[in-house]
Amino acid sequence: MARTYAPITAEIVAELRAIVGDKYVIFGDDERLEPFSHDEVADPAYATMPECVVRPETAEQIAAVMKLANARGFAVTPRGAGSGLSGGAVPAFKGVVLATDRLNRVIDYDRDNMTITLEPGVVTNEVNGIVAKDGLFYAGYPMSMETCYIGGNVAENAGGGKAVKYGVTGRYVIGLEVVTPQGEILNLGGKLLKDVAGYNLISLMTGSEGTLGIFTKITLRLMPLPRAAVDLLALFPTTTEAIAAVPKLMMVGGVIPTAIEFMDKTSVKAACAYLNESIPYEKAGAMLLITCDGASEQQVETEYEAIGELCLKHGAFEVYVADNATTSERIWRIRRNIPEAFKVQSPKQSVEDIVVPSASIPRMVEGIEAIMAKYDVSIPCYGHAGDGNLHATPVANPKWSDAEWKAKLKEILAEIYVLTRALGGSISGEHGIGHKRRAVMERYYDPVFLEAMRAIKKALDPNLVLNPGKIFDVG
Amino acid sequence: MARTYAPITAEIVAELRAIVGDKYVIFGDDERLEPFSHDEVADPAYATMPECVVRPETAEQIAAVMKLANARGFAVTPRGAGSGLSGGAVPAFKGVVLATDRLNRVIDYDRDNMTITLEPGVVTNEVNGIVAKDGLFYAGYPMSMETCYIGGNVAENAGGGKAVKYGVTGRYVIGLEVVTPQGEILNLGGKLLKDVAGYNLISLMTGSEGTLGIFTKITLRLMPLPRAAVDLLALFPTTTEAIAAVPKLMMVGGVIPTAIEFMDKTSVKAACAYLNESIPYEKAGAMLLITCDGASEQQVETEYEAIGELCLKHGAFEVYVADNATTSERIWRIRRNIPEAFKVQSPKQSVEDIVVPSASIPRMVEGIEAIMAKYDVSIPCYGHAGDGNLHATPVANPKWSDAEWKAKLKEILAEIYVLTRALGGSISGEHGIGHKRRAVMERYYDPVFLEAMRAIKKALDPNLVLNPGKIFDVG
Repeated sequence: MARTYAPITAEIVAELRAIVGDKYVIFGDDERLEPFSHDEVADPAYATMPECVVRPETAEQIAAVMKLANARGFAVTPRGAGSGLSGGAVPAFKGVVLATDRLNRVIDYDRDNMTITLEPGVVTNEVNGIVAKDGLFYAGYPMSMETCYIGGNVAENAGGGKAVKYGVTGRYVIGLEVVTPQGEILNLGGKLLKDVAGYNLISLMTGSEGTLGIFTKITLRLMPLPRAAVDLLALFPTTTEAIAAVPKLMMVGGVIPTAIEFMDKTSVKAACAYLNESIPYEKAGAMLLITCDGASEQQVETEYEAIGELCLKHGAFEVYVADNATTSERIWRIRRNIPEAFKVQSPKQSVEDIVVPSASIPRMVEGIEAIMAKYDVSIPCYGHAGDGNLHATPVANPKWSDAEWKAKLKEILAEIYVLTRALGGSISGEHGIGHKRRAVMERYYDPVFLEAMRAIKKALDPNLVLNPGKIFDVG
Repeated sequence: MARTYAPITAEIVAELRAIVGDKYVIFGDDERLEPFSHDEVADPAYATMPECVVRPETAEQIAAVMKLANARGFAVTPRGAGSGLSGGAVPAFKGVVLATDRLNRVIDYDRDNMTITLEPGVVTNEVNGIVAKDGLFYAGYPMSMETCYIGGNVAENAGGGKAVKYGVTGRYVIGLEVVTPQGEILNLGGKLLKDVAGYNLISLMTGSEGTLGIFTKITLRLMPLPRAAVDLLALFPTTTEAIAAVPKLMMVGGVIPTAIEFMDKTSVKAACAYLNESIPYEKAGAMLLITCDGASEQQVETEYEAIGELCLKHGAFEVYVADNATTSERIWRIRRNIPEAFKVQSPKQSVEDIVVPSASIPRMVEGIEAIMAKYDVSIPCYGHAGDGNLHATPVANPKWSDAEWKAKLKEILAEIYVLTRALGGSISGEHGIGHKRRAVMERYYDPVFLEAMRAIKKALDPNLVLNPGKIFDVG
């Protein structure tokens, strides 16, 4: 990809200042630009310094920035909270990072229609604080929900802990205001439970990783807050046994559980150390965290009892029940903090996001164990096992030099991806392709699919100014 | 739209015969071509005779037909069962109708992964016949499910009777094989519960009304079959009272009902007469048909009792409970047959498909009543009230000439659409835009949205050979 973009000149900076205000442009100050050079990907190889950061406050300002980018030929990379795990918010071709942190208003909460309309910079978890009093909740549950922005969730079509039952972010996005790559303001959908007037551009935009538009308003469908919820923590001797139980749990008592999360011992141990927390993991090689929720305690009880029994039948040696919010939150906090815990240990690791048909996860785990043995490498695993989504995380063997790690990681990942695709899986279930997996996408996916994406990208962003270098090569 | 397409010459017919076999090409036989000139839209003004019909058997044959269409410049209109309600399968620019009836195989039923993979010509209802024995079901429930094809459901993103709880077709489509407008075979998704590798082209294709590709394989996610289900038939004195109750029912007992269907007296009467059926509608001006389903009888009982009480509190004078499959099916059959019942009465009617935010349906119904009074016209209403989706159906006043009906319908529909858009609604909740509402789409929707759709259409179908004249003008 030899594409070149216009450098950000003093003249362009002046134009940007005129659009968003002097105060909201960062230029020529490396210390203040640096935080915008990376997201939560640990490996510094994926970081790139922006030339300039702008922090607009309105859709109109964003539209003006995009029009300027097209006129002057510079690249614009939109950014939410920077909590992404694929380098989506990293300015791969330098230019301007457009931060959405100032678009952080709750525009409309409509209790009667069970919807909420937000600007993209609202922290995801805020929604539940607003709507819980009316017996409603937002069913998206990304693991970073205490810090991530809803705009980033929509851009990545974030998954999370409750997707088995509730689906991912996209299921709840029913309206969008989007600034197009050419700087037009596009309105899609509304407070509608269904709408087939024209192409489903809401779903096309959702998960497009900031390459097709910048969201400025997001309308979410809310759901009735479950009146009862229980978490089970099932301890298994080994990863193999824990994972083998997962497909058996997918349809217990005629209902799909809300969550079936998997954590191996290494992952739990790292998170407990990071949080200075303790749960009885020592005897367990792996555990499943299973949530049941529903409209009544009695219903949930029937469900979790059946699930508990099934776990014991399929190899669990102990099943703990967390039937109050404090204990539940304690366990989920451990689960949510695994990626951060690994990250502080060392940047020499790679959080993967493979997803396979749910009945194939035992075969996936067998394959990963073979790869561990072959390369003498540790690949702790955790993730959303009920969705078939495993965050296998190769961690450098301390004996390896940087160069060795780099070379071996490439081979290890190639083996993981080949196996994933052979099992009918995909290289990303929820983190996105971004900068980090672009070359992998080109290698393992249908050329006709790649060509169709390129054609759509070029049609909507003819000058290729919006978030270049992500998902695929435009050429 | 002055676009012209190549006429189907004897030479092209010979090439088509070489691709699909002599037996599967219809040409020069008006009697056999006629059934392919229309769908279920009553007004003959929307019918157009094809020049030729082909009935391929494989994706490869379809790809060859599309390559030929691009080379020779003729139009191709794909067709499923022809049960559509917006003229989507009508060859607006003549040319070739490509019938998918011979692609009718069940390719793979995967009980462990809870998926089924079908060719597009499988009748939707067949799926449940295959999977029910394993405690699974397909949650799409279009009213024409006994005759429609799954391919058409995906092309239109069909809604139906259970969308309040289960969503529409698109929620269950997790994999597609598609022949592109240029004749390539494109593979998307798989048996995956989530997948964010690249743009969500599955959702873009779903509901694109056969303008972006022809489906040749469809993988659906199945759900656990509810172990208990009950239908309530709540009788109200007037339409206004029945509709006013709907928003109150959306969140009873912390759960969303499976279905909240609305039928006014005229609609029920027409369907009962058509089916030679009788239910106690005489005293009722309107009724709601409400379904609750769940994992246990006790759960469903709690729910339907709360709903029944709420109906009585909000104006119902009688609530019947249908707690066995025979009675339930009897009521649902009446509901499903309303469009057909109206259609046999006269072609001088127009089935509309407006959808508004669910809390706004009382205001929508008030507006429709004002329009009825203003024009001295009958507009019976029925539909998926829980989704805000009403099939308001203007029917010609018998006093009117054909010309008067045509002129007045235009005005009546304009008033309905203006009101719908003013309430934040959309002109189609599930039937699609097709041929019938193309001009309306151009008039009432955001030009930026229309321009984005045109750009995508041109990018994927540069010669505009696939299903031209649908949704929007390409220009």
